[in-house]
Amino acid sequence: MKVRVFVYLKKGVLDPQGKAVEHALHSLGFNNASDVRISRVVDLHIKTTEAEEAKKQGEKMARALLANEVIEDFYVEVSA
Amino acid sequence: MKVRVFVYLKKGVLDPQGKAVEHALHSLGFNNASDVRISRVVDLHIKTTEAEEAKKQGEKMARALLANEVIEDFYVEVSA
Repeated sequence: MKVRVFVYLKKGVLDPQGKAVEHALHSLGFNNASDVRISRVVDLHIKTTEAEEAKKQGEKMARALLANEVIEDFYVEVSA
Repeated sequence: MKVRVFVYLKKGVLDPQGKAVEHALHSLGFNNASDVRISRVVDLHIKTTEAEEAKKQGEKMARALLANEVIEDFYVEVSA
């Protein structure tokens, strides 16, 4: 199964990378851009035919490695 | 409008970060994980009420700064 883990900063956590991108966008003339936040997506294959199992595994991986739960939240999507 | 720019490596381009994560997952016992690819998502607000205009602006930003089109592709989603 294809699994997508979407990892994003919790609301209220500062995003310095987003801020840097926002400044760069303004420098380039995109003055109407604001609230830039950067997240990451981890796509992977998990060798199983059960969507429920794949989702559980994806969540385990997120907790163990992919997300830093102190400052980040995540959700997992599964497709065939 | 809320704009989401999804930036991902072109098919065939090596993803060393993804490989590193894959190895780490295997080390942690997730041996059924493979084909790990890491992408990034840039969420931002664009001050306009027209979705078409917001999408165009998002694409311009992606081409100018957010994506490296030599090795990356992107797509832009707009929501209210």
